[in-house]
Amino acid sequence: MTRVLYELAAADPDRRFSPFCWRIRLALEHKGLSFEGRPWRFTDTAALAFSGSDKVPVLVEDGRAIADSSVIAGHLEAAHPDRPSLFGGPAGAALTRFHVAWTDQVLHPALVPLLLLDIHRHLDEADQAYFRRSREARFGKALADVCPDPEAQLAVLRRTLSPVRAVLRSQAFLGGEAPLYADHAVMGAFLWARGVSALALLEPDDPVEAWRLRMIERLGEGSRALAFG
Amino acid sequence: MTRVLYELAAADPDRRFSPFCWRIRLALEHKGLSFEGRPWRFTDTAALAFSGSDKVPVLVEDGRAIADSSVIAGHLEAAHPDRPSLFGGPAGAALTRFHVAWTDQVLHPALVPLLLLDIHRHLDEADQAYFRRSREARFGKALADVCPDPEAQLAVLRRTLSPVRAVLRSQAFLGGEAPLYADHAVMGAFLWARGVSALALLEPDDPVEAWRLRMIERLGEGSRALAFG
Repeated sequence: MTRVLYELAAADPDRRFSPFCWRIRLALEHKGLSFEGRPWRFTDTAALAFSGSDKVPVLVEDGRAIADSSVIAGHLEAAHPDRPSLFGGPAGAALTRFHVAWTDQVLHPALVPLLLLDIHRHLDEADQAYFRRSREARFGKALADVCPDPEAQLAVLRRTLSPVRAVLRSQAFLGGEAPLYADHAVMGAFLWARGVSALALLEPDDPVEAWRLRMIERLGEGSRALAFG
Repeated sequence: MTRVLYELAAADPDRRFSPFCWRIRLALEHKGLSFEGRPWRFTDTAALAFSGSDKVPVLVEDGRAIADSSVIAGHLEAAHPDRPSLFGGPAGAALTRFHVAWTDQVLHPALVPLLLLDIHRHLDEADQAYFRRSREARFGKALADVCPDPEAQLAVLRRTLSPVRAVLRSQAFLGGEAPLYADHAVMGAFLWARGVSALALLEPDDPVEAWRLRMIERLGEGSRALAFG
């Protein structure tokens, strides 16, 4: 079975920085499924046209293209039931939607102001123009003005993590004794940040930092090379 | 098997308003376990002394006292495995900790400023004094000054619910097709509010409001009488 994951990349093709692509990369590793991670850039819409999607992640499994991280995760769980579960059963799958929604709607917005300029700096020229235009329209201000006080924003981010922190005080992973897709969704945000920024997002004694390091220890070889190569 | 649930009550013993007690009441109904809900007041510490806890909920099952809502929920699941599951399995139990932590640390703080004066108004005299003293110490200001702009706070509350809203756009309950303990944790907040305030917390077309009404439809008779009697 051939498997290709299209992943958002910077000018350097090994710099992968989409949180949504990272969660699928982690899900594929969780299931022990081999794949080729293929770099893709914002403005490379022609390369994705075959899939019907204009965004990554797109997973192509035996010629079938699947877009949208949540759809891909559901597909992986259904298509590979003999492999370690991403959700721990139907109730777990339903409950995980909250972790994913919280990551997308609360965690990412707290993190993105800290990363915008770094992301822009790492893109190739065509993507830089696209990124500046689309993000300045989204935030209604110049990129450089989105985060006037990074220290205050860092404090917001750390406060935002409080429910994750509370859970990780009583168990090793959001999924319990081992990671589940809920962990991958949140970890995607940290690997996104890691891909473009050297900023220490967490205090060394934060239980979330201890969890982040446990998640890094479990990265597959390919992911480790991309994140720390 | 006799079962007594000690629940926080206002001057009117049928006005029950602790979100933590409500989630256990919903959990007991979920499991189809009969119980007597016994009103308890903040300053009634003598009545709880037997349990070793100075707070409700306390569940007494066949003479054994169990305190703390999460501990009680875990006990109910372990002691009554033949009844409908609160978590849908071990992964679900681990994942539910995030819903509970988010409710305690994010949802309740967004809601409590809107309720403080109403709670105070409904308490008996001894509890009023305790409540004012302890809450003014916690907020560092007079009760009347905690929420200078209720409309703005209501907007905060509705924004805070965005990840719940996102989940409920794609499924009927946080637990999927039927409620799980994650639903009871969040619903506890709404029944707390309902117990003391007539404020419409949600817009009629909000998916969270549709879910709240579905949860109300499923209340047992005793709970319905307390919440709407």
